[in-house]
Amino acid sequence: MKKSAIVLFSGGLDSTTVLAIAEDQGFDVYAMSFDYKQRNRFEISTTKKIAASKQIKEHRIVDIDLRAFGGSSLTSDTEVEKNRSFDEIGTGIPATYVPVRNTIFLTYALAWAEVLEISDIFIGVNALDGSGYPDCRPEYIAAYQNMANLATKRGTEGKSISIHTPLLMLGKNEIIAEGLRLGVDYSETNTCYDPSDSAVACGTCDSCLLRQRGFHQLGIEDPISYQQRLTKK
Amino acid sequence: MKKSAIVLFSGGLDSTTVLAIAEDQGFDVYAMSFDYKQRNRFEISTTKKIAASKQIKEHRIVDIDLRAFGGSSLTSDTEVEKNRSFDEIGTGIPATYVPVRNTIFLTYALAWAEVLEISDIFIGVNALDGSGYPDCRPEYIAAYQNMANLATKRGTEGKSISIHTPLLMLGKNEIIAEGLRLGVDYSETNTCYDPSDSAVACGTCDSCLLRQRGFHQLGIEDPISYQQRLTKK
Repeated sequence: MKKSAIVLFSGGLDSTTVLAIAEDQGFDVYAMSFDYKQRNRFEISTTKKIAASKQIKEHRIVDIDLRAFGGSSLTSDTEVEKNRSFDEIGTGIPATYVPVRNTIFLTYALAWAEVLEISDIFIGVNALDGSGYPDCRPEYIAAYQNMANLATKRGTEGKSISIHTPLLMLGKNEIIAEGLRLGVDYSETNTCYDPSDSAVACGTCDSCLLRQRGFHQLGIEDPISYQQRLTKK
Repeated sequence: MKKSAIVLFSGGLDSTTVLAIAEDQGFDVYAMSFDYKQRNRFEISTTKKIAASKQIKEHRIVDIDLRAFGGSSLTSDTEVEKNRSFDEIGTGIPATYVPVRNTIFLTYALAWAEVLEISDIFIGVNALDGSGYPDCRPEYIAAYQNMANLATKRGTEGKSISIHTPLLMLGKNEIIAEGLRLGVDYSETNTCYDPSDSAVACGTCDSCLLRQRGFHQLGIEDPISYQQRLTKK
């Protein structure tokens, strides 16, 4: 029997690659996405479109209202930082940090895993080429996994929960290379923190900048449109 | 300046006592309750009534749909166990276990703490006289606190998050004695997993049984009404 895994899935470059990696490792995939009133209102429709093109077991979209807490430019009307240099990105915690977001996402996945009797959860966090969020670091993931095993019936019964982070120590270019090897169609993915009303990526938020640099480094053209393309190296 | 704390608050005997303990320790209290479509539909109104009678800074009720996952008699139409012996209660994990519930509750509190810049979170978990849930054990709480400090901006900046569990190693009788010392009015609290349509506690679910035994052991009458009172010792 094939093993099953839950994949946290936002329709962005990273989590779409993770979904392909989980499939490639032989897992039946249960995908979980979150409607958290994020600034990018196209994220959910992107996840539905990509999920529909895959052989996944189930795609569940959970409504959670992180705007109730505020504290982030992704869930409030605060400005998203634009046109930061790559030296700035990754130093300090930016305004796009959503308090405790990965812990909330992992915890909903953990609840679903407990009910489905699944031990494997995949999340596309990235420490190396990321935005300096505390909940993207290896020590955080290790602590979460340890907690998860103590929190659950499943963990208590010795069926250990594993939090898989295949992108954790990869550069964005390495992530894209791996995805292309696995046949990921990046033209469908939606990475931008702050797209236009017609869903075109801004090209200047941290997430768009890191993505474009990744494609640049591989010498491959990024297949999505941008309002403003990266020119700096 | 007074320190502030978030108190997870269900309007039950335990968390109402915890709220009084946090106030007694000199904290300004932000109370957080959850409408998770629980079987006890009176829980939210009870929290509002008790919170209104206290000098708390804010009472926030978060809507989350744990029924989406199922897996518990508290969030589905599965029967709640009734009339179990005290030997049975606390051995194994009962049908009332809600997958990962305390992790979800603590994580919402953690998100609110991060936004409010608060380091102290109180939760009324109880390992000694509890129902055998994995997420009520001291090792779970320690692991959660460790994870929380790695997950947050606050933790990363060295303003350590503390998860306070003042009831962790107390018997129900000791909890009640402490609450009475602090002036808690237990006639307002709502403990039952499965009350009647007119909000009367069943008297026979694990939660009602443990509560009644606590009052018995103190030789004090429990001020709430029951459909069926505990007769066994």
